[in-house]
Amino acid sequence: MTQEIRTVAIVGCGVIGMGWAVLFLSRGLKVIISDPMEGAENALKGYFEQSRSYLEGFGDYDKLVSNYEFVHDIASRLAEADLIQENGPERLEFKRGLIATLDKYARPGVVIASSSSGLPSSEFIQQCKQDSTRVLIGHPFNPPHLIPLVEVVPHPGTSSESVNTALNFYRSVGKRPILLHHEVPGFVSNRLQAAINNEAYSLISRGIVSAEDLDAAVTSGPGLRWALTGPIATNALGGGGGPEGFSQRMERLGPAIRGWEDDILKHRFDWSEQRMSALQESVNKSLGAVKWDQLVEERDLVLLQLLAAKQKMASMSTPSGH
Amino acid sequence: MTQEIRTVAIVGCGVIGMGWAVLFLSRGLKVIISDPMEGAENALKGYFEQSRSYLEGFGDYDKLVSNYEFVHDIASRLAEADLIQENGPERLEFKRGLIATLDKYARPGVVIASSSSGLPSSEFIQQCKQDSTRVLIGHPFNPPHLIPLVEVVPHPGTSSESVNTALNFYRSVGKRPILLHHEVPGFVSNRLQAAINNEAYSLISRGIVSAEDLDAAVTSGPGLRWALTGPIATNALGGGGGPEGFSQRMERLGPAIRGWEDDILKHRFDWSEQRMSALQESVNKSLGAVKWDQLVEERDLVLLQLLAAKQKMASMSTPSGH
Repeated sequence: MTQEIRTVAIVGCGVIGMGWAVLFLSRGLKVIISDPMEGAENALKGYFEQSRSYLEGFGDYDKLVSNYEFVHDIASRLAEADLIQENGPERLEFKRGLIATLDKYARPGVVIASSSSGLPSSEFIQQCKQDSTRVLIGHPFNPPHLIPLVEVVPHPGTSSESVNTALNFYRSVGKRPILLHHEVPGFVSNRLQAAINNEAYSLISRGIVSAEDLDAAVTSGPGLRWALTGPIATNALGGGGGPEGFSQRMERLGPAIRGWEDDILKHRFDWSEQRMSALQESVNKSLGAVKWDQLVEERDLVLLQLLAAKQKMASMSTPSGH
Repeated sequence: MTQEIRTVAIVGCGVIGMGWAVLFLSRGLKVIISDPMEGAENALKGYFEQSRSYLEGFGDYDKLVSNYEFVHDIASRLAEADLIQENGPERLEFKRGLIATLDKYARPGVVIASSSSGLPSSEFIQQCKQDSTRVLIGHPFNPPHLIPLVEVVPHPGTSSESVNTALNFYRSVGKRPILLHHEVPGFVSNRLQAAINNEAYSLISRGIVSAEDLDAAVTSGPGLRWALTGPIATNALGGGGGPEGFSQRMERLGPAIRGWEDDILKHRFDWSEQRMSALQESVNKSLGAVKWDQLVEERDLVLLQLLAAKQKMASMSTPSGH
């Protein structure tokens, strides 16, 4: 049985740290949070205010928000934490020192989860003197209180108990954790994004489509499905449903798909100056007129409706079993 | 000026042809439709019945549906059509003969659009004797009456007038057409899907994640954004918005992303028997318990809510300008 987690230390209070704080407070947890950056505490207060309607969905705003402490010396308070969520800068040397400090002051058995978005934790546990088996990645998707995904990535020495504690904890606060069985750079969601983005950059820089039409090819097409069924379930449905549907589709469309793949590889976006500038030119032309503030506001409104609609459906609600 | 399109001939009445029929009828157009397959006419009637609530969103069901004719000899009726939407099987020899027949009987200037999902039209216009400059691809996304995307792909000889007619026509029936400036195999959306799917198959077949978690990595993460903002706008927002945000993100994250890309390439899914079987095994284990009927039903319900929510937002409504 996992020890109950009532107090979380959040180390680093940028956009990700603030989102975690809102999430944990919404679920009635106590938060101890710190950041050396000037103005961090005020930024956090502003973020709470922005997230008022979200927090009000879970209880009385003032009561929930009263449950945090912004501290200047986190080390002296780490012993109070039942779980630590680290959100420091993505620089190896810095992370190594920080994780060693967290490991030094955390109580035995307390899980140290890093929000690192691509660096596996095996690269930054070298200086831990107490217990590196409780270090793992808990990589959220921005903003952490709204987007359900958390990637849990143990390093080869992480204990299975720590993994289970992290998975159960994230589920308990409404997240949908996924478990990576081995470390890979970029984890899963950033690799999937890199894969689609490379072909997107390639098609635009080759002059096949405008940046605007490329985006529409996703938001008016497959993107609508990917919000609801992932690549594998979508493939299975394309073959009539079920695991047999998946294999039937692979057999039927495999030869055509392999032909497309060869052509994709042949024309990969190589980050050369010439293709970068062709890409940026199309982006400038296509996206220059977008009203970004309006887009963000409207996106967030639709996103909340989408998440609420999914939550009502048994087949799509989070957190799901594992 | 484009001639008004009031009557559409739909050649081929499988799932795609039936979806086109529902779309065109919902907009008050007249449809002449044919398919040599036994039972095709009954399947079509069943599909109309299934689409009743969709059609009722546009007018009286019986009145809208009365506006079609299922015919056995489409050639003799092609002269009545103001646009032809072809949905025959994706076999080159068959397509060549069919397109030549359509070209022979269509009135001069009438656009012949093929729903081909990956074969560019330059490969099947060879037998046209009248006017191949009016042939192009109008590739929908299934189901065509619900998903806005249509990929318009001219061949090198397609007239710009035909391209404009097709773009305007699809917009007029509520679609979001995108224009490909050059032919590429798989067009845009199937290439983007192939790119993400290859990495998905790779991660699963390597044992990094289960098929179920892979899907969650999309539906609970980036897939939620791709329904609303495409890859390019999402990148720009990640850099703070605007075309400058896009270039800033490319500069800041470029080195990390290129590292992920190298690792992706190194481990590409190669369709070998061994990796195919590891992939299928995870699919069997993960997706064996999915209730597919429920999933499809719930997905369609959420999809309709999502489309309606987007339609209310100026920044996301379709059809958009070009």
